[in-house]
Amino acid sequence: MDDTRVTTEADGWMRGFPPPPERRIRFSDGSFNEWPQRRWTYNHVEELVPTRAVWRGRGPAIALPVSPLPLDGLRIDRAAGALSWDEALESSYTDSLLVLHRGEAVYETYLAESAPHLRHLIMSCSKSMVGLIAESLIRDGVIDPLAPVPTILPELAASAWGDATVRDVMDMRVGLDYDEDYTDPDSDVWRFIRCTGMIPPLPGQEAIGPADVLPTFNKRGEHGQEFSYQEPNIFVLSWLVRRAAQAPLVELVSDRIWQHIGAEHDCTHMLDPSGGETMPAMTLRDFGRWGQLVLTRGRVGDRQVLPAEIFDDIFQGGDQAAFASAGYDTLPDWSYRSQWWVRHIDGRTCLQARGAYGQFLYIDQVNELVIARFGSAKEAPSYLLDHILLPTIDAITDFVAKERGSS
Amino acid sequence: MDDTRVTTEADGWMRGFPPPPERRIRFSDGSFNEWPQRRWTYNHVEELVPTRAVWRGRGPAIALPVSPLPLDGLRIDRAAGALSWDEALESSYTDSLLVLHRGEAVYETYLAESAPHLRHLIMSCSKSMVGLIAESLIRDGVIDPLAPVPTILPELAASAWGDATVRDVMDMRVGLDYDEDYTDPDSDVWRFIRCTGMIPPLPGQEAIGPADVLPTFNKRGEHGQEFSYQEPNIFVLSWLVRRAAQAPLVELVSDRIWQHIGAEHDCTHMLDPSGGETMPAMTLRDFGRWGQLVLTRGRVGDRQVLPAEIFDDIFQGGDQAAFASAGYDTLPDWSYRSQWWVRHIDGRTCLQARGAYGQFLYIDQVNELVIARFGSAKEAPSYLLDHILLPTIDAITDFVAKERGSS
Repeated sequence: MDDTRVTTEADGWMRGFPPPPERRIRFSDGSFNEWPQRRWTYNHVEELVPTRAVWRGRGPAIALPVSPLPLDGLRIDRAAGALSWDEALESSYTDSLLVLHRGEAVYETYLAESAPHLRHLIMSCSKSMVGLIAESLIRDGVIDPLAPVPTILPELAASAWGDATVRDVMDMRVGLDYDEDYTDPDSDVWRFIRCTGMIPPLPGQEAIGPADVLPTFNKRGEHGQEFSYQEPNIFVLSWLVRRAAQAPLVELVSDRIWQHIGAEHDCTHMLDPSGGETMPAMTLRDFGRWGQLVLTRGRVGDRQVLPAEIFDDIFQGGDQAAFASAGYDTLPDWSYRSQWWVRHIDGRTCLQARGAYGQFLYIDQVNELVIARFGSAKEAPSYLLDHILLPTIDAITDFVAKERGSS
Repeated sequence: MDDTRVTTEADGWMRGFPPPPERRIRFSDGSFNEWPQRRWTYNHVEELVPTRAVWRGRGPAIALPVSPLPLDGLRIDRAAGALSWDEALESSYTDSLLVLHRGEAVYETYLAESAPHLRHLIMSCSKSMVGLIAESLIRDGVIDPLAPVPTILPELAASAWGDATVRDVMDMRVGLDYDEDYTDPDSDVWRFIRCTGMIPPLPGQEAIGPADVLPTFNKRGEHGQEFSYQEPNIFVLSWLVRRAAQAPLVELVSDRIWQHIGAEHDCTHMLDPSGGETMPAMTLRDFGRWGQLVLTRGRVGDRQVLPAEIFDDIFQGGDQAAFASAGYDTLPDWSYRSQWWVRHIDGRTCLQARGAYGQFLYIDQVNELVIARFGSAKEAPSYLLDHILLPTIDAITDFVAKERGSS
C-alpha cells in the first residue's frame, strides 16, 4: 500500500499551555488550511475563525441505538487492489465514520484528532443542506424555482445570473465565465475564495464579501444545459434563500431541520467577511441524524418535518446526460439534483452530499443505510478519494444487507 | 430619570443580507467593544472572534420550573431616588435577567439583542469559574495553595509572582507593579489587554499571548496584604490550573462543572492569541444553573459534584480589612475570596461574580436565591452600576422572601 498513512500527523499541533509558537495554528497566516495542520483544524474550526451557531432547540436528543457489526474485518475490493478496513480508513485520511442501519449505529469510529463532541467542517456537504432549505422555501411558496435570479437578488441583474433561474442554480446548470487560474492571484477563483472568508485577505486589502464579488461574474454559454459544478452558484443560492426568507441561514436551518432531528449539539457555520454563513461544522452523529431525515423522506417519528415530495424529487435524480458531459470518471451514471449528488445504481438511486478533503453523507433508501464520514485529506477534490471511498461504501452496503437483511 | 435609556440602541447593526457596510461590526477594526455596537456584540461574540466550546455532556438538561412573580411592579428604593422596575432595567442597560428561588424561575426577561439561546459574554464573572476550578484542583491535591507560583509556572520565577503563593493569586493579594496609564499605548495595561486577545494587535505588530507578557511584570509592595483587583492575576491563575492539570480550561470546566449542572447548552470561551481560554460566553439559564450549583454547595440532585467544603470556605468570605483598604465605596463590608466577591450583610454572606459592563451572578444561600444578569453598559466598571443593581437585588430579595417565604 503506497498510499497508506498513519492518521496521527496532527500530533503536537496546538498542544501545551501555551503551545510552542512553531506548533500553533492560525487563520491569519494561512496555516488553517495547510496539511497536516488540517488534521487538527477541521476538528476545531470554531477555535480559529468566527462562527454562527444553529440552535438545536430545547427538545431531547434522539438516541441512536448502538448495534455493532464487525465492519473492521471487511476487505475492500477494488480495481486498484484490495484494502483491509484499516488500510482503507487510513489511506483516505479518515477522521470519523458512522454507519446507521435502520437508525441504529452499526459502526462508529473516531480517529486522529476527531472526537464525538467536536464539530467537524463538512465543506461542500453544506450545499446539500442549502438545497433542502431552498426546496422547503419552494414548497412554502416563498421561492419560485422558475423565476429569474434577479427577481430576488436585483444585485445580480447584470451578472451571469441575470437570466438564470433559481432551478438552474440549484442544479448547477449555470453558464458561468469563471477563470480558475490558480497561478494568478487576481483570477476569478482566488477573488472568489477570498470573498468567502475561507482564506485571509491579501496583505493590505480589506476583506470583502460575496455580494461584492458575485455581481462581477459574467455569463458564458447557456443556462439549463450542462452540469457545471462551480462554487459561486452555492453562494448565490444561499444568498437567495436568506434574502427571500429574510432570515439568516442559521435560523432557516434551525427552524426547518436542526430543531427537529433530535440533534445532540448545535451545528455552526463559518462566516464570510460580510457576515454571511458559509461552511458548517457539526458532530458526526448529528451529521448522521441529518442523513436519517433524508432516508425517512423528512419524517421524524410521527412528524413530517419536511414535505416528502422534496425527497421524492431529489431521489428521482437529475439529468444524467447533462451530468455525463461534465466528465466525472469516478461517477459514471450519476446525476445532480438540488445540490445533491445522485448515484443511479442497480435500479435504485442513492444520494450523496460531498465535501472537499473527504467529507460525505451517503443515503441508500432501499438498504435503509446512512453513512456519515469526515476526513482531512491532503488534497481537496472529492474524486481523488472515490477509488477508496466508493468501494468502501459498497462493501459496507453488502455486508450490512447480508448480516441484517434489507427491506 | 436622567440616565434612563431605551434598550434598542443596537437596532440596525448587522441586519440585512448582507448588512450595509456602515452597519457591520468587526473585531479587527476595534468596533467589537464600542458602544452601542456592544449591545449586539456581547450577545454574538462567537460571530466575531474564535472561540472554544465547553461541552455540556450527553445528559438531559435540568429543567428550571417556571413560577412567575410580578417583579415588574417593584419600586427600587435608593438614596439617589426611586426607580420603577423598567427604569432600573433600562438605565442599567440590562440585556437579560433571571431570578431563581429554590431552583424555580420566578422572573426571566430578555431585552435589547438578547435571547434565551444566545451565549452572552460574562466578562470577569469568568474569574469566579476559574476560582472554583482552582479550589477543585486543590481539594484533589493537584495544586498546593501555599506553593509559590513558580513551582507550577517556572516562567514566572523572575516576575512579580516569583514569590507569590497560589492563594495570594486566588485572593487578589499580589503586590504588582502594574501601570494603568490608559493614555500610553505601551503602558502595562494596554500591553496586557492586547495579549489577552480582547482587542486587535497594533498595526504591524504580531499578536502575542499572556505567556509572553506576564513574565515582564514586576513586584511592588508585598504579597498577601491588601486586596488589589488586577487583571493579570486571573490570567496567572487560569494558566496555573491548565499547566497543573495538563488540560485546557474548557475540559476542566466541562469535566468538573458543566457536564453536571444540567446545562442546556455548551458554553464557550474567547481565546488569547496563543490559544488560551479567556472570557466565556453562556446562555442566561446556564449562568443561573451554575449559580444554583453554588447555592446548593456543589450538590446536584443526589450527586456531590464539587466538595461542599469549597463553598463553605468561600461563603465564609475573605479578609474584610484587606478588602476595605482597596476603597470600593459601593461595596462596604464586602470581602473577596477565591475570585468571588463576598457581601457580608445582616449576619449572612452572599456571593457575587462580577463582570464589566454589567454582568453578575448573585447567590444568597439563606434566601435560596440566585440572580443571573447580563448587560451591555456604556462604561466598563461594575461599581458604576452598583447604585442601581444592588438596590435592585435587595428589592428582589425582599419581595421574594415576602411572597414565597425564606427558610
